[in-house]
Order: sequence, then C-alpha cells, then structure tokens
Amino acid sequence: MKKIFSVDPWKVTEMDMHPQDNRLAESVMSIGNGHMGMRGNFEEDYSGDSLQGTYIGGVYYPDKTRVGWWKIGYPEYYAKVLNAPNFIGIRTAVDGVNVDLAQWDVENFERSLDMRRSCLQRSFTLVDNSGRRIDVAVTRFLSRSRREVGAIRYAFTPKDHRADILFTPYLDGDVYNEDANYGEQFWSHVSQSADSSTSCLTMETKKTAFVVSTAMRWSLDGADPDRTDAGEKQSYVENQVQCRAEPGQTVTLTKYAAVTTSRDWPSTETEAMAVQRVNEAYEAGWDSLFDEHCRAWKQIWTEGDVVIEGDDEAQQGVRFNILQLQHTYTGEDPRLNIGPKGFTGEKYGGSTYWDTEAYCLPFYMSTMDHSIARNLLLYRYNHLEKAIENASKLGCEGALYPMVTMNGEECHNEWEITFEEIHRNAAISYAIFNYVRYTKDKQYLADYGYEVLLETSRYWADRVSYQPRKDVYMILGVTGPNEYENNINNNWYTNTMAAWNLEYALEVRSYLRQHHPERLREIEAKRNLHEQEPEQWQVIRDKMYKPFIEEHGVFAQQDLFMDKEQLTVDQLDPDDLPLNQNWSWDRILRSVFIKQADVLQGLFFLNDRFDQQTKQRNFDFYEPRTVHESSLSPCVYSIIAGEIGRTDKAYELYLRTARLDLDNYNNDTEDGLHITSMAGSWMSIVYGFGGLRVCDDQLHLNPFKPAAWERYAFKLVFRGHLLRVEIAEGKAKVTQEGGKPVDIVFLGKTVSVPADETLEVDLH
Amino acid sequence: MKKIFSVDPWKVTEMDMHPQDNRLAESVMSIGNGHMGMRGNFEEDYSGDSLQGTYIGGVYYPDKTRVGWWKIGYPEYYAKVLNAPNFIGIRTAVDGVNVDLAQWDVENFERSLDMRRSCLQRSFTLVDNSGRRIDVAVTRFLSRSRREVGAIRYAFTPKDHRADILFTPYLDGDVYNEDANYGEQFWSHVSQSADSSTSCLTMETKKTAFVVSTAMRWSLDGADPDRTDAGEKQSYVENQVQCRAEPGQTVTLTKYAAVTTSRDWPSTETEAMAVQRVNEAYEAGWDSLFDEHCRAWKQIWTEGDVVIEGDDEAQQGVRFNILQLQHTYTGEDPRLNIGPKGFTGEKYGGSTYWDTEAYCLPFYMSTMDHSIARNLLLYRYNHLEKAIENASKLGCEGALYPMVTMNGEECHNEWEITFEEIHRNAAISYAIFNYVRYTKDKQYLADYGYEVLLETSRYWADRVSYQPRKDVYMILGVTGPNEYENNINNNWYTNTMAAWNLEYALEVRSYLRQHHPERLREIEAKRNLHEQEPEQWQVIRDKMYKPFIEEHGVFAQQDLFMDKEQLTVDQLDPDDLPLNQNWSWDRILRSVFIKQADVLQGLFFLNDRFDQQTKQRNFDFYEPRTVHESSLSPCVYSIIAGEIGRTDKAYELYLRTARLDLDNYNNDTEDGLHITSMAGSWMSIVYGFGGLRVCDDQLHLNPFKPAAWERYAFKLVFRGHLLRVEIAEGKAKVTQEGGKPVDIVFLGKTVSVPADETLEVDLH
Repeated sequence: MKKIFSVDPWKVTEMDMHPQDNRLAESVMSIGNGHMGMRGNFEEDYSGDSLQGTYIGGVYYPDKTRVGWWKIGYPEYYAKVLNAPNFIGIRTAVDGVNVDLAQWDVENFERSLDMRRSCLQRSFTLVDNSGRRIDVAVTRFLSRSRREVGAIRYAFTPKDHRADILFTPYLDGDVYNEDANYGEQFWSHVSQSADSSTSCLTMETKKTAFVVSTAMRWSLDGADPDRTDAGEKQSYVENQVQCRAEPGQTVTLTKYAAVTTSRDWPSTETEAMAVQRVNEAYEAGWDSLFDEHCRAWKQIWTEGDVVIEGDDEAQQGVRFNILQLQHTYTGEDPRLNIGPKGFTGEKYGGSTYWDTEAYCLPFYMSTMDHSIARNLLLYRYNHLEKAIENASKLGCEGALYPMVTMNGEECHNEWEITFEEIHRNAAISYAIFNYVRYTKDKQYLADYGYEVLLETSRYWADRVSYQPRKDVYMILGVTGPNEYENNINNNWYTNTMAAWNLEYALEVRSYLRQHHPERLREIEAKRNLHEQEPEQWQVIRDKMYKPFIEEHGVFAQQDLFMDKEQLTVDQLDPDDLPLNQNWSWDRILRSVFIKQADVLQGLFFLNDRFDQQTKQRNFDFYEPRTVHESSLSPCVYSIIAGEIGRTDKAYELYLRTARLDLDNYNNDTEDGLHITSMAGSWMSIVYGFGGLRVCDDQLHLNPFKPAAWERYAFKLVFRGHLLRVEIAEGKAKVTQEGGKPVDIVFLGKTVSVPADETLEVDLH
Repeated sequence: MKKIFSVDPWKVTEMDMHPQDNRLAESVMSIGNGHMGMRGNFEEDYSGDSLQGTYIGGVYYPDKTRVGWWKIGYPEYYAKVLNAPNFIGIRTAVDGVNVDLAQWDVENFERSLDMRRSCLQRSFTLVDNSGRRIDVAVTRFLSRSRREVGAIRYAFTPKDHRADILFTPYLDGDVYNEDANYGEQFWSHVSQSADSSTSCLTMETKKTAFVVSTAMRWSLDGADPDRTDAGEKQSYVENQVQCRAEPGQTVTLTKYAAVTTSRDWPSTETEAMAVQRVNEAYEAGWDSLFDEHCRAWKQIWTEGDVVIEGDDEAQQGVRFNILQLQHTYTGEDPRLNIGPKGFTGEKYGGSTYWDTEAYCLPFYMSTMDHSIARNLLLYRYNHLEKAIENASKLGCEGALYPMVTMNGEECHNEWEITFEEIHRNAAISYAIFNYVRYTKDKQYLADYGYEVLLETSRYWADRVSYQPRKDVYMILGVTGPNEYENNINNNWYTNTMAAWNLEYALEVRSYLRQHHPERLREIEAKRNLHEQEPEQWQVIRDKMYKPFIEEHGVFAQQDLFMDKEQLTVDQLDPDDLPLNQNWSWDRILRSVFIKQADVLQGLFFLNDRFDQQTKQRNFDFYEPRTVHESSLSPCVYSIIAGEIGRTDKAYELYLRTARLDLDNYNNDTEDGLHITSMAGSWMSIVYGFGGLRVCDDQLHLNPFKPAAWERYAFKLVFRGHLLRVEIAEGKAKVTQEGGKPVDIVFLGKTVSVPADETLEVDLH
C-alpha cells in the first residue's frame, strides 16, 4: 500500500512527480463525463512510463479470444473498450527545446483532481539547461453539459527571461491497446483535415466499424502568435502556434476538442458534427464552457454528496468514489453501462458484469433521477434476445444473461465463469424488483420487466435437475459469487436466488393479470408461454433444495462445504495473503476460504426474509472464512455487520474498500480504478451505517454512527423527494429539501417528513 | 467416417488422389524410426491443401502459453514438438514445366504404406499439356538401422516421348508450426553449404537452442546428368540435376539425407556428423541401406506381430497400430517418450502424457526387449527433481509428475487438468509395479523405482485431507480419468490408486530393507525421509475414503455422482453425439456421461483385487453411461468385458479403436494419428481376447476367440522367452520359439512350455 496523494475533502493531489507510480496517478486522476473518459495522462510529451488511455463509451472491438482449449459455447471474441484517438496532446517547446517531463528538471510539480468541479489541474516549474524557469499551469475537463466536448487550458509564464514558445496541439489516431490479445491495432484511418485553426481526424474501428471523429480548435491568450501552421501525417493532425512571452507574462493556449461517433450520428456526418461541436465550444469560450460544466457538477453534489466530519481520509474517499462513478455513467444512454474500470484503464475490457445490478444500481437509484436507474434496467431488457441466444448456445431454454458483455453477447472465456456463474441471471431479475420497490414504477413491469422475469424463470426451470431420491430440485455444476469454488453443486445463494426469481416472476404475473391483463396476454403470446410453465415454476420454487449445515445452524455455501478443512483466516500465514497471489488455483479451490460474499450476498439481497439470529449465525460462520479478495466483498459483510449490531466490525470492513484506489490497497490501481466497488463502498455508508432499506413500500432508515467519525450526512433521492440524512453523536436528523411531505420509517418509527423541515431523533 | 484406403493385410493404399482428404492420407502414411518421423507429404511441389510435417524426437520449442486468465502455478510455456527442416523435398520439372500434383493431370495415382518394410511408396502417371505421359515411382524410408538417415528414390519414365527432366532435391529450413500460439517462427539460421554433390543446412531452435543439421547427397541412375548445379537462399539449399530420358527409359534420382542434432553431438559437430552420415549412406548405396532397414523390420514383426485370419480389416488395423507405435518409439533413448500423435502431426505438442504408463508400456514390455520398457521408466526417474519442483509450485510436498511434458516441466495450461488430474502420479508408480511384475527386474526398485515411489507417496500424504467427522482421508478437488467431470471430491479411482501407491511404496520399502538395506538407507538419507512418514502412509492407506453407491453395489465415481440425472447413452439423441462436439462444457460436466474409463480403469489396473461379481456390477453400471469420447476408453472396457465373459461386448468395444485412424472414425485423423490409443487397441487383443495377465509371479493366458475371426495369433516377449499364442475355433496353442522351458498358467492350469514346442489346449 502506497500513499502518494495528499488528504483533502475536495481534492486529490499528487505532490512531486512519481515516475515509478505514474500509472497509479494516471488512474486516480482520471476524468470522464459518461460519454467518454480518460486517464490523467500528460498533455505534453512524456518519455517515462505511462498508460495512454482515452475511451469512448460503447466504442468497442471484438478481440479474438485467447483460450487454452476451446470448448463448445465459448465466445469467439472478447469485446474490449478501445483506447481511442488521443485528443489531449499539446506538444510544447521552449526556445526550440521540446518539453518532456521525464527529461527536464521539474520543480513544484503538482497534479490534482478537483472533485467539486471534476477537472484535472497540473502546475509545475520547468527549469531549462541554463537554469531559467517557466511556470506551467494546465486545466482539463470533459464537459458534463456537452458530452462530446472537452477543453484544456495550457498556460506558460517565463519567470526570468523572454521565452520563445511553440505549442503543438494535435490529434493522434495511431493508438493501440496494451492488452490486445494478439498485438493487433484496432483502428483504421478514414480521413483527416488540418488547417491553422480547426483540424479533424476520423478513424474507424476494425470489424465493428464505429466511426469516430475528433476535432480540435485552439485560441491563444496573452500574446499574438508569431506564426501558425498546420501539419499532418497518416492518422495524425497538428497545429503549430508560435509565440513569445516576456518575463512574468502568461501565454495561454486553449484547446477545444469534440468527439463524435457513429453511435450517435450517421457515419458520414461524424466529421461535420465534430467540427460543428468544436466550433460551438470555441464560440462559447473557456469561461462559459467551464462555468456550465461546474454548474452541472454542483447539481450532482447537491443530490448525491456524502459528508463525513472528523475523518478527512474517509471524506476524501467517499467523494472520490462518487466522483468516479459519475465520471463513468450518467444514465442518459441506455446502450451504455458501467465497466468495472470505467474509463480509467483497459482491464476487464470495459464490459458489463453483474456488478451493475448488485452494486451500482442502488447508488444511481438513490443519488439521481430514477430514469437513470431505469436506463440501467433497459440495457438488459434490450439484450434479452441475445440472452436467449446465449442460453440456447449452452443448450438451455429461456434467457441466460452473459457474465461479461458489451453488446449482449457473452465475451468471457473461462468455462467455470461463463458457463457456471449463472447466479448473475437472478441479480438481473433482482434489479427489477429492487428498482420497482424503490421507485414504485410498476409500469416498468408491464412494459419491460416481466419479459425478463419470464425468460430468466424459463432458464431456471430448464437448468434445475430433479433429484427423485430426495424429491427436490437441484442446481448442479455452478460457480457461486465466491469464485474460489468452481463447479460445485447446490450453491445456496444460486439455488435461493433462482427460487426467488421464479417466485417473483409468478408474483409479477399475478399483478399483471390483475392490472394489465391485456398486456400480460400480449407478452405471453409473444413469448409462447404455456400455462404449465408457470405451474412448474411454482413446483420448482417450492421444492428447491437449499443446503443447510445442521451442526452450525447455517446455510451451506454448497453441498460439500463441510468436507473442506475448516480453517479460519486468522490461522493463515499472513505471507500467504492474498491467496490469489500465493496459492495455486487448485489449493484455493479446495480450501474453505471465500473470495467474496456468497451466502451473505443472499442475506443482503433477501434481507427481510431472515431474522437477526440467522444473520448472526451465518455472519459468524462465514466472515472468519472470508479473505475478501474481491473489492466487491467487504461492503456486503459491512452492511450485514451493521444490521446485526457489530458496528465496529462494520466500520473495519468498510475501511477495506473506502480508499481502495487512493491508497492503492490491492496494488493494482495502475491498471485502472475499481469503479463498481466504489458503489459498494457508498453502500457501506448509506445502507450499512445509514441503515437504508425499502420494505413494506416504505423507506427505512436505521442509522448508527461509526465511533471514528464526528458526524456524517448523505443525500437521498427517493420517489421525487430529496432527503438529507445527518448522523452526529447521539442524534440523527432527516431533512427534506423542498417537495411534499413524505412518510418514512426512521429508527423503527413511521414519521412524516414535511418539506424543507428537519426531524431529529435521539440515537439509542 | 470415411474410408479412402484399400484393405490389405500388409499395405495401406490410397487409390486416386483425394485433395479434400490429403491431410488425412498424409497422417496415415506417416513413417518414422524413433529418432525422427514425418507425415506422408509429397516430395515434389504441391499447391493443394497439405500439412507439411517433419519431426525430430526431443527437439521442442517452449511456445508461450495462451490462457484466458493466468493462475498461480500455470506453466509459462507449452513445449511443442517442432516442424523441423524439410529434407524430403525433390522439386521436379519436365520439359521446363514444374510438376505440381494439384495442377497437373495425374492418372493411376497410388500412395501406399508398406507395413512389412515400413516404407512409403507412390506411383502415378503425369500427363502434360500435350497429352504426353510420364510414369513416376517414389519410395521413401527412414532407416531403422541408422536412425539419423533417410532415403528417397524418385524415378521418371517417359512413356511416349523424350523428356527433359530437372530434379531439384533441396533442404528447407524456412518451416513453421501451424499451431504456433502467436504465429512465431521457431527456428533461426546457423549455417549452410551447397555444392553440386553434398549440401548441408544447420538451423537452431530459438530459446531451446537445439542445433539440427540436415545433409543431403544425390545420385542419378539410368542417365548421365546433362547439367548439375547448386543453389541457395536464406535457410535453403538445393541441387539441380538436369537429364534426359528416352521413351521407356527410367531415370532415378536417389536422395540420401541425414539429420543430426545437438542432443547427440556437440553443437559444433552436428554439421560434420550430418555430412559424414550422409556420405556413409551414399557409399552404402540404396540397395544395401534398404536391405538392412528391411531386416530390422523383419525382426520387429518376428517378436511383435499379431495375426488375424478371417478379418482382413482387423488384420490391417492391428498391424497398422503396431507399425505406427514402432515408428514413434524404439526405446533406445531414455530421454524420449511417446507423444499422443507421435511424429504424425503437431497436435498435443508431441509431449508425454500418462498414456505412456497406462497404455503404451504393456505393448513395449510384451513386444520388445525389456530394456525398452525400462527406458520408459527411466524417463520419469530422470524427471523426478522436476516433478518435485512441480509439486512445490502447487504448494505440495513430494513429487507430482506433470500432466503433459517434454522435459519434465508441466506444460499443460488448464487448471482442471494440470492442477487437478493428479491421478497420473499413481499411473507412474503403477508402471514401476507393472514393469517389475512382468520382468522380475527387482533391481530396478533399488536403483531407481523406490525413489519415485517415495516421492509420489509423499505427495499423496500431503495432498489428502483428513475429515474428522468421518475419520477418513479424502482427496478433494480433482479431475479423474473421466475428464467430463472437473473439480470433484473423492474420485474413487484417484483415491484407490493413491492408497495403492502408498501401499506399494511401503511394500517396496520392506523388500529393500530385507534385500538392499544399505541402498535403502542411502535413498532415505538423500530424500530426508523421516520415520514417521511411512507410518503416516500406512494410516492414510488404511483410512482412505472410497465412495460406494449402496443401492447399486458399485464404487462411486465421485461423491456426488448419484445426484446427477441418471441417464444412459441409449437415451441420448444420436445427433448429440459426440457430446464434446454438440454440448456446452457445463452441460457435459453436470451430466452423468463418462468420457473414458474411470472406475473401470481402477478395476483394470488392480485387476486381481476385485472378484467377478464386483467387476460385473461396475461394468453394468458404468458402461451404459460411457460415451467413449477418448480413444483410450474402449480398450479398457473391452478388456473388462472379456474378463467377465461378455465376449461379444468385448469385440464390439475393441472395434471402436481398432481402425480408428484408418477409418478416420473420430474425423480428426488429419491432425495426426492417435498413437497412444493404438497401444490400447493392441491391449484389447492381447489382454482382452488373449487374457494376458501377470500375477503370482506367473504369466497367465486365458484366451477366447471373437466369433468374427477364424483364427488369431500374437507374439509375446516374457522374461527372455519368445512365445507365440494362437487361438482358433475350439483350440488354443502356445509355442515357445527357442529359449528354455517356461511355466505359464494357460486357461487356468499351470503348464510348462518347452523350447520350440507347442502346447495345445481345448477352449471351453
């Protein structure tokens, strides 16, 4: 664990350069606006170690998969988010010498992520060979209000001499992915144009044929250019802006950029649109552009901020998490989703995992307009036919959503995950339940939700196997959420969630029969549902086998869990941790150690079905066996710990992900940020400490205060109400900002929160 | 299934060209001499589909592995047998037009493998554009008596015109492997020389630095050359021999080739040695070379032939199998072993699998001098330290032999095989037992065997886990011989063989204590064996858990076998077969269907420990659930079927592998031959029908005659005795050729077989 960033409630700042940890800093300093994002790379040349990364939502490439031994049903490709044409580049030269921060003497270097305004700032002093100094200040943002636009201000101030300065803003399409399976380049050149003011580069992805046009335009403040020029080579355009600055005089190049794609425009028009967008940005000017961007971010923090007092590290951590989630997904485009690394690196290919439904949905549901969460659901609805194809490839009826996807097709290629980690299907159904429960948008069930529930139920009904000797339905050969067991039988979580999926489908069916009978008939005709199918769902739900360990009174993670050597994590040699970096895979698999919440994930999802004693027993049994080697694990344990009153344990577990990336806890942040686990960290606070639940059609809040904090507060959007919840020593307050009165269950009592008023309750 | 070869007891002949099936014919027409081998490629140019393949035993390349997700303990490379420099090439031109059999009109084409003499022959008539005809006859062999030498006779006879003929024999080092994981070329150029008589090319493998020199020399018969010349380009040398043939006149180019490697010579001397060898061959001349080669093969057939009368297809099949086994491995070099495809293709990388111990050893033990089998054992002994390293990589004590290897290191990269298919360790111990039982070479135990038994026992003792609830030792997380189940607990075969391995180690230890106490002390000091280790082996052996299915009275393939849906193969839709080409992997895994002998493999290995009823019950339970999708499976079932008196079933199962490649039964022979399963097919006859067993220190023969055959006979080498066993209707005969009298158990009775006499017994 390495801490290279200073602690501040609203900023993440790297003081001094860290050439060895530059990739880490680049990951942490990533910015994005949902449409696109980028790592915190430098604008000027840098010959040191760096992972250049600019990513555009939904622009992917089907890289040929790399497998040891092909098996039927494997996907042919692994969709990857692409490193897209670089539009941030501004090569600079002073007195004819090109600036390269790896080569020049640099003083007072600072790279800082301004979280309030979502912009990346750098400042440093260049020292040339004669010891002359130039101050440099750079600000970059990707506009939250104009999603195709970004802008950079690059300012030079010679301190003690008159400097000749050459700015060379450029667009570079000659980019590659470090993780390309076979070293191929994924882009081909379409067209380019460069004149001394506006330039444009159009590239196209191979195979998927996404056309991406990138345009740039510049302005110079503080001096008139002595010379301007344009240049180009294959897949590369540049402008040259030569000027002179007197000692103490600041010259500033502003680079406006726009990125348009054939996902949004006809492919013949992307170029014209990029030019139009960049010209609009240029006309608006930096101040106006930046101002509207900051206003959009003010709104985000108004609805979704979490305030922690008495612990600046925690405060910085949670804001960083919210910031990066907002960089990744804005919810405007239902074709997009949330990659585990967002726009901050290549790993995991930028694809969609069940992380979205299990961890991210609650965050977006509670911090933004409900239409955003609804778009996350629609993403899966729109992939329903592909999920049916996917099930069919595996020889099953109904729909099996892919484990990893970009366009609805499976693109993971390990059988133990792809073919066996089928519990993801239930998470997708659960998200519908969770969304409807939270928002009361029951219309969604008629419009879209039931179709997904029907086809996932169909899958489960086909995937189970009847075991006559015990008169039960079993689910054989699965991998549960705990990926440290593969090909097990009767994973309690999977079986329980499958039964729940069937039950919920039947419940929604009853609801539709009563309230939307016409629509129900229409759906079931379209889906060719036979009446005996729902009958069978009921039978399977009732006879689903759910393994139990009598001697401990806990649910069995799987049939043979108790045949494993029953060790606990505290018996391990600390040098063996993390297990996945020290133990061979077979040793991990046959050990009792659990990677991430499995039985506990079920206790979290179906929270109100289990009593406190059950939760306690299972927590006490499984927690000591869990190594939390997924960043998605501790939050679930933390939430359950909070629920059963283990508040210190809840806090301890929360700490494991709160600053995962800022402190590079897992030593892998250089590859990119753990975006989806950031939502889990947010949940630890709002669900875990704040005790947020929705049940009996009501919002419940049952907060406690971690001892280490003086005070914390969070915002909630709930069915059109904006609530602020604040917990201090001995007191909990809930305030509604505007709106109409709303009834909530606050610390166990139903109370009505009027508009613009605060209710205060003593904490037990 | 496609039959393109004519049936003949001693020949495999392709009549007419089969451009669509050329790769199949190339595989089947492979020749080899243990030192090297090659596919039945054409000498002249061929622009049609072909897999060029020349392979040299032990010359491999560590190709970078291709995995989906790297796991601790995975090998970094996958050792591959290399496609080596091509030395068979003879480009030919007639009247200035290059001969390409894919372009020219060809009549009366015949490609034929002469099994008696192990040579490849081709004959055909070329028809040029003017309709003029030239007869061509080609013979190629790799010398059995001079393992570094091969020779080719290439004869042209113009039928109706005077033809200008240009022969261009060449050596080509610019070769690649089709299955290279990343498309890399594996050879680099060292040196070359070409003059008009003898040329030489020296190449070196990348990374492994094997130096291979290939030399050639030619002679011309039937005409004097009009012109001779030499040419070369990078990694390529050629001679040109121009001559003229009158109508009816035959001109013959003889190409002598020699291949030497740095495995046998200092790398600076390979070139000189190749030139020396080729000159020796040239001096000897074709007739003499071929004659000594044929005499060596005569000896092989004398000791190891199987004669089948009344079924030419069966006769051809078994001889083909014996031939190809003899092409692959001659046993002279303990550094070599038997790749599943021998020298006939690239697939499986030419590496060593447990096939050697389980299937091939009995063949070589019974058909060749016992030193050959001993060398197969020494191969593993020499890899013992690497096997200890391998176990250590997986966090275990003792030795775990690799699943797939070239030099003792693991080179398989799927966790479910590499890490979990640990039963291979017992097969390697079993081979020691089997060898000593057969040969009575007990000295081997003291010299080498016990060390292997000690370290494999150590592995098992560490790999088991004690289960206090049942007071048993379990083996969790394995893949048994049936690879259609992965990551199962308590595979009966693995547990049983592990317990047996421990028991045999203890037994050998007792033997050594009595007969070689000094050596025992020396070994155990070297291996740091503590006295409590063997005590623990005894405890584990006694308390090993061996799952049993009460309701069927059979051994349970694994703990949860009975939770699977209990179907049998006859209930499957025939379109679903083979399952591995029609079902997704997860579906296969959770199905009851068995790829290859698993429980039955144990019944075969530990044959005399189970009574007839036990064998019957297990056969009747498992056989209907077995799809035999490994070519290694039917032979074991066939042998057990024979043993329990199901002779028709035994014959039916035998048929599934007897002509596997000749009839391209699995539709994959184009990739190469199934060499190791050929040994299984041989076992079906000699162990299955012939009833060969060794127990109580005696050779048992308990033959029956398949109804479809009139008569069959096989040869056996047993402890220095050469026996011929012949079974006809109602009669079984055993004849000793030479030697001293030997006692055997023939159809249940102990009899003495004198030298050069025949014993005849009535069959029940």
